[in-house]
Amino acid sequence: MTEDSAAPSFSTRGPVLIVGTGLLGTSLALALVAAGVEVQLSDTSPTSLALARDMGAGRVRIDGDVEPRIVVVATPPDVTASVVLHELEAHPGAVVTDVASVKDRIAAEVRAHGGRAARRYVGGHPMAGRERSGAGAADSDLFAGRPWVVVGREADPDAALVVRNLAVDVGATPVRMGAAEHDAAVAAVSHLPQLLSSLLAARLETLPEAALALAGQGLRDTTRIAASDPRLWSAIVVGNAGPVVELLRAVRGDLDLLIDGIALAAPPPDSPQDTASGGAEGIAPGAVGAVTDVMSRGSAGRSRIPGKHGGAPRRYAEVQVLVPDSAGELGRLFSDVGAAGVNIEDFVMEHSAGQRAGLATLSVLPGAAQPLEEALDARGWRVVGA
Amino acid sequence: MTEDSAAPSFSTRGPVLIVGTGLLGTSLALALVAAGVEVQLSDTSPTSLALARDMGAGRVRIDGDVEPRIVVVATPPDVTASVVLHELEAHPGAVVTDVASVKDRIAAEVRAHGGRAARRYVGGHPMAGRERSGAGAADSDLFAGRPWVVVGREADPDAALVVRNLAVDVGATPVRMGAAEHDAAVAAVSHLPQLLSSLLAARLETLPEAALALAGQGLRDTTRIAASDPRLWSAIVVGNAGPVVELLRAVRGDLDLLIDGIALAAPPPDSPQDTASGGAEGIAPGAVGAVTDVMSRGSAGRSRIPGKHGGAPRRYAEVQVLVPDSAGELGRLFSDVGAAGVNIEDFVMEHSAGQRAGLATLSVLPGAAQPLEEALDARGWRVVGA
Repeated sequence: MTEDSAAPSFSTRGPVLIVGTGLLGTSLALALVAAGVEVQLSDTSPTSLALARDMGAGRVRIDGDVEPRIVVVATPPDVTASVVLHELEAHPGAVVTDVASVKDRIAAEVRAHGGRAARRYVGGHPMAGRERSGAGAADSDLFAGRPWVVVGREADPDAALVVRNLAVDVGATPVRMGAAEHDAAVAAVSHLPQLLSSLLAARLETLPEAALALAGQGLRDTTRIAASDPRLWSAIVVGNAGPVVELLRAVRGDLDLLIDGIALAAPPPDSPQDTASGGAEGIAPGAVGAVTDVMSRGSAGRSRIPGKHGGAPRRYAEVQVLVPDSAGELGRLFSDVGAAGVNIEDFVMEHSAGQRAGLATLSVLPGAAQPLEEALDARGWRVVGA
Repeated sequence: MTEDSAAPSFSTRGPVLIVGTGLLGTSLALALVAAGVEVQLSDTSPTSLALARDMGAGRVRIDGDVEPRIVVVATPPDVTASVVLHELEAHPGAVVTDVASVKDRIAAEVRAHGGRAARRYVGGHPMAGRERSGAGAADSDLFAGRPWVVVGREADPDAALVVRNLAVDVGATPVRMGAAEHDAAVAAVSHLPQLLSSLLAARLETLPEAALALAGQGLRDTTRIAASDPRLWSAIVVGNAGPVVELLRAVRGDLDLLIDGIALAAPPPDSPQDTASGGAEGIAPGAVGAVTDVMSRGSAGRSRIPGKHGGAPRRYAEVQVLVPDSAGELGRLFSDVGAAGVNIEDFVMEHSAGQRAGLATLSVLPGAAQPLEEALDARGWRVVGA
């Protein structure tokens, strides 16, 4: 094997060791395997490790295996720094990177204790994830088209290049940032949404079931990430406490204005609301103003999120079908889809108790949507919005 | 045309007048037209009215037209009560209903000023909407499978029945509730999510673009409804001020705990964070505890939302199966599930190009999980975690 003279001193053409086979580690391993890279896996949990291996994410690293060229630490963020330090020592020829959601504290700890080896560490953060965790939720496309922050100003430039190439290999877009700049950014675009989603969902804990039955897509969307792992997120938030607290205080300021404003329109607690008190009365303008102010600023903020209409670019077309709530209907739908010769890329079934029909969303390649709608319509399915 | 003697005194077999051709009014009109019902349209805005008519939502009502059997008031909530009162007087043979998001204040005002005619008023609230407004965003399927709250305890029982039938005619599921019960429910499942989404999105107004470029699906989902119309929502929130303020105060209590907790882990503002200070230090447990507490309660609350990804009132068991990435495999899976005689309550497919296998999660009644796993295993499927 010859080596091109222009090649970086750290090559990506060698085994990549993934330490931690959770969602991110396993997804990265799957993507690398798909790109033809040899992947070695390591995890303190034999169950997680076996699942990742069985999903095709690589082989379990054993003593005597060829040395990795890159080590990716994909552990929870509260132990990332110590694992990075350990891997720097264990693999003196490797670039070591991580995928943790906070960067400043980890970089500081690695620099404080890593000596010269710390120059082989390059902080990384792929902006990808989901509310579910573990190898079972892994997805080789998790990084496709996503930003991958590379924090390498203090590192060997060749090492930083290796990590940038790793990101490119799995379809991500590398983005250079300083550690503090990264941490302030993710506090706003990731950590604050997580905490507000949890604060909102916490109000549902004791809500009557009849009220929950009225839940719609708005509540589902705003609380989706509230299902995330509290242990993982506690470590993330605590690791980025400064920027997070600053944002939470700003939210509290707006919340106070909102409460004070809306309270002007609320009836006193002891007055039965049996006469018309709302509408155009003198107390309402202050309340309207408070809500309008926060909502207008929210609308302006929302509109700044990149992407068409603020939404994620869609690779697939969606076909929505109403499915009657009775045994075998979903199976019949899939038989009919199969008979139409269309492969389903993604499928989501929304189905609530007490509802006469569930809504199935089938994601298909854009060219397949119309033929599928026609085929299902011909077989008597109610295709929504066709 | 003969009339069945058991028929209610208000028939649904007559023209329906829709007053207000915004998103809800036009969507309802389109759905009724699709169901073969004659629809008359009215709006103070000639532009909106013409758009709704051109979309096929019915004809514009003119003087001398046949009297409507049902009038649906679909105006902004701050004028709903006065429009309802006007329509009760203008159409003395009609049932009058509305689609406003708040019910208690409207009902009180109609009762206070409507006299005997108020018994022809039945409050209604279809739990459907989108972040876009206006006739142009209308969708005849907007109500399909959605709950439609009917508040008719103070109304003529026949009138309430007419409104229930109207809901059924457009594919919705009527749900009986009292006005106060409704308002408390929507404060939690609709108004609070709206306000927290706006509070979150307001933080993006001044965020650097480099930070916004890191936005992912979590931020998009949590802020989607922040794009909603501030004017409409101000009226909704002010009309439901009591229940909304109560919830906002509870959120503030949790937010205070969160801020106080996380602040324990934040470095003092004037100390450069150049040494490792996070992790297992003495200050961290309080911070971790605060975040874990809110997130755990949020996760519990989230899991109570009926339907997909939120668990269900009946708890379903999940069976996870690896599905090879080739055409027809998903169809084959459903055939095999069907052959096993098991009904699928919910289904999520996580499947991406470039991955050798996608993960299908099938929700079934608890007793059906093990037989299904065995049946699928016998047919050669890889059942995960079985």
